[in-house]
Amino acid sequence: MASDYSCNAVKLDSINPKVLECEYAVRGEIENLAQKLQEDLNVSPNSHPFNEITYCNIGNPQSLGQQPITFFREVLALCDHPALLDKAETKGLFSADSIKRAFTILDQIPGRTTGAYSHSQGIKGLRDAICVGIEARDGWPADPNDIFLTDGASPAVHMIMQLLIRSKNDGILCPIPQYPLYSASITLHGGTFVPYYLDEAAGWGLEISELNTRLETARSKGIHVKGLVVINPGNPTGQVLAERNQQQIVDFCKKESLVLLADEVYQENIYVHNRPFHSFKKVARSMGYGEKDISLVSFHSVSKGYYGECGKRGGYMEVTGFGREIRNQLYKLASVNICSNISGQILTSLVMNSPKVGDESYECYATERDAILSSLARRAKTLEYAFNSLEGVTCNRAEGAMFMFPCIDLPNKAIEAAEAENTAPDAFYARCLLNATGIVVVPGSGFGQVRGTWHFRCTILPREDEIPTIVSHLKQFHNAFMNEYSN
Amino acid sequence: MASDYSCNAVKLDSINPKVLECEYAVRGEIENLAQKLQEDLNVSPNSHPFNEITYCNIGNPQSLGQQPITFFREVLALCDHPALLDKAETKGLFSADSIKRAFTILDQIPGRTTGAYSHSQGIKGLRDAICVGIEARDGWPADPNDIFLTDGASPAVHMIMQLLIRSKNDGILCPIPQYPLYSASITLHGGTFVPYYLDEAAGWGLEISELNTRLETARSKGIHVKGLVVINPGNPTGQVLAERNQQQIVDFCKKESLVLLADEVYQENIYVHNRPFHSFKKVARSMGYGEKDISLVSFHSVSKGYYGECGKRGGYMEVTGFGREIRNQLYKLASVNICSNISGQILTSLVMNSPKVGDESYECYATERDAILSSLARRAKTLEYAFNSLEGVTCNRAEGAMFMFPCIDLPNKAIEAAEAENTAPDAFYARCLLNATGIVVVPGSGFGQVRGTWHFRCTILPREDEIPTIVSHLKQFHNAFMNEYSN
Repeated sequence: MASDYSCNAVKLDSINPKVLECEYAVRGEIENLAQKLQEDLNVSPNSHPFNEITYCNIGNPQSLGQQPITFFREVLALCDHPALLDKAETKGLFSADSIKRAFTILDQIPGRTTGAYSHSQGIKGLRDAICVGIEARDGWPADPNDIFLTDGASPAVHMIMQLLIRSKNDGILCPIPQYPLYSASITLHGGTFVPYYLDEAAGWGLEISELNTRLETARSKGIHVKGLVVINPGNPTGQVLAERNQQQIVDFCKKESLVLLADEVYQENIYVHNRPFHSFKKVARSMGYGEKDISLVSFHSVSKGYYGECGKRGGYMEVTGFGREIRNQLYKLASVNICSNISGQILTSLVMNSPKVGDESYECYATERDAILSSLARRAKTLEYAFNSLEGVTCNRAEGAMFMFPCIDLPNKAIEAAEAENTAPDAFYARCLLNATGIVVVPGSGFGQVRGTWHFRCTILPREDEIPTIVSHLKQFHNAFMNEYSN
Repeated sequence: MASDYSCNAVKLDSINPKVLECEYAVRGEIENLAQKLQEDLNVSPNSHPFNEITYCNIGNPQSLGQQPITFFREVLALCDHPALLDKAETKGLFSADSIKRAFTILDQIPGRTTGAYSHSQGIKGLRDAICVGIEARDGWPADPNDIFLTDGASPAVHMIMQLLIRSKNDGILCPIPQYPLYSASITLHGGTFVPYYLDEAAGWGLEISELNTRLETARSKGIHVKGLVVINPGNPTGQVLAERNQQQIVDFCKKESLVLLADEVYQENIYVHNRPFHSFKKVARSMGYGEKDISLVSFHSVSKGYYGECGKRGGYMEVTGFGREIRNQLYKLASVNICSNISGQILTSLVMNSPKVGDESYECYATERDAILSSLARRAKTLEYAFNSLEGVTCNRAEGAMFMFPCIDLPNKAIEAAEAENTAPDAFYARCLLNATGIVVVPGSGFGQVRGTWHFRCTILPREDEIPTIVSHLKQFHNAFMNEYSN
């Protein structure tokens, strides 16, 4: 930060206490240390025992060398600079179906430009295309009026929390461990975070008995529990829910009148054959439940999947079972920010309605997609074995998403050393790992964990050819750490 | 909206009352009617006494045919699809400086891709470029650590309101008339909107005596007033503040320890020679005031100016005089949403650091820019004369921005007719205008106005060749309306 002079207009004790209270560990202390080390290395490449920072902390694949899907970027470039569409040379530079798709999309935009504000829910033709994709995925109808296009999933989550939460007496059930956007958003909107614990020993299983217990406890304290967050595939846990489990969750929400907030942003990131992704809407509809049985919000994003287009800030939520009056309120909230960015809207329509067999781009598209997904699956497997080979470390397999969440049985001496530095033991481990190897992970305390257990979140995103080196550095560090702090 | 069946999980009486209370008239009742009429015309072109809807309600120039600046779009397309940079044909399709700029920008992005999340304040190299632009504009230094890149100005305004407002006891001084983002954001964050009135008779002048009176009144009610919003050039009023007036405002904020929230998104939209734009930071620094004298936030956006890139959702705020601890809280808020969209970030850097004399693109760029700005100035003049020629209508000149805010002296019979329909008289006028001509304006009640006066906001954005027809339809309607409701 620039300078520490400031006038008296704003002081820490007079700003919004909810902002002070809010925590977001994914970009917290360890990330700041990584930035500092990066700056050191830029100035003096030999200042640390490693040559580069290895970012395993954030699900940001393209920052680590993953290439964007060609077809998607062709369409985006043509839509942004449609003068190209009139040029003869363009046919040699772009695929025929990207040109066709760009024309189709521009025809759907009033003014035929990505530079105009759209309808507050997003361009109607793009919402239509997204619904085609949802219907192909689920086998159940989707309505473009149910789609709200957003700048990534985060603003959509904030919008729903803002709608639902009145005060500290309103609660939202969230998994532990969780992606800390949820705790941050609930805190910022003044509500109560009601935790339920995933069962690590059962592969991060979600037990209905646990949900029941936590709901009853919250209600006994006077908390009006309004929604249940389920992250499937899981972040930071990587588990994929079984369909039977999803049916139980749907029944629980229906019985208890909870809004089911389904974070389904990793729906394309599945690495095991026995756990296909099922959307909660498909599960609910397959059980015979319609609009009047369950209120459901499904969040999706272009940041994840095989595309990993984080910087585009595109995404949508599909909102069903809310009724006209509530939907009007959501529309009003969306309209206060006018609309989400149009390139993100276009990209969202592309990932939900990608090239089909017979399209000129299909082969290239499918090759790029499959290469990324199969490589991610191999990386997940390699890291799973590596973590489980470390002394005192156990790690569930990553069935989906982009993360591993290994558990470390830290020696007492390490815990004492951490306490002496006034640091959580897992943050202490993560900091030692970073200082020794340049590998950045996020301490488990940022996501929540059973008291007395310690974890960290590690992405599976570094380039595949770098994984062996990372594993080797990790093992070397871990052995040295365990030796140093052995009881 | 799709259907009105819904389950019991969410009801109107159990959602956040701040959401219910919030109003955003720019996309309110009249906009909804316009959408309905548009749908009617799509189905049956002769269903209304006009062939098309004429959108004068929203500052959305490209939706009305304004073309994007070629250089900006070249750079965006190349950054999104950098494979083009390696192709021989590209030199024939793109200007040399757009290719050079794309290389420079990609070099500044970790991973060299627009698909990666950036630093939560935005890509450092782009913030550097923005600071170059601010320094050239102001003649005073700018610090990239002070820049927060955002998805347009709206999320930046929300972020500051979220930071400053604790409860209904915290207030923000805002102009009347105002852009309703401010009232909406203050309501959503639970604060108190403290109005001050611009003096319509003095060309929408901002009087310090008025600020003093309103501040004292609010304080006497126990309101802790934390900030002052100034929109310069004005929305919906179109006035540009004189430098002397800005100095008084700076002194007022300094003396009263108020954060000066300077909405400067129309800084490039100036149509008169005697009122150049001065940023509040330049004014404050020229008075000898530094970081410790005044807390200042300047909001800017790519949606306005001669570029009008609304759909890109790019913008920044420059935050000075806040001190490290508060800045850390702002950084945390930015990091919860991870980052703003990268194309918007790039475009923001381009508008703040556009082609210079000698660059291959310069002539084309300057021609496009000047054509847009001079045409906007002519349109503003034509509409000013037209409004002032109408019976009972007076209208200040638009010195800047994109709007006129004429005052209509409505006959009592019209007011009674409106009351009979339970509608504000200016909304009644706007609805009659829309139904008769297809012209969409926003009723003044959405922006606030002196009690008993009636206005509407009309943009100057329809294509210049359409303005005579619009004026003619407007006159015809207005005469008929005044005849029908004459006292």
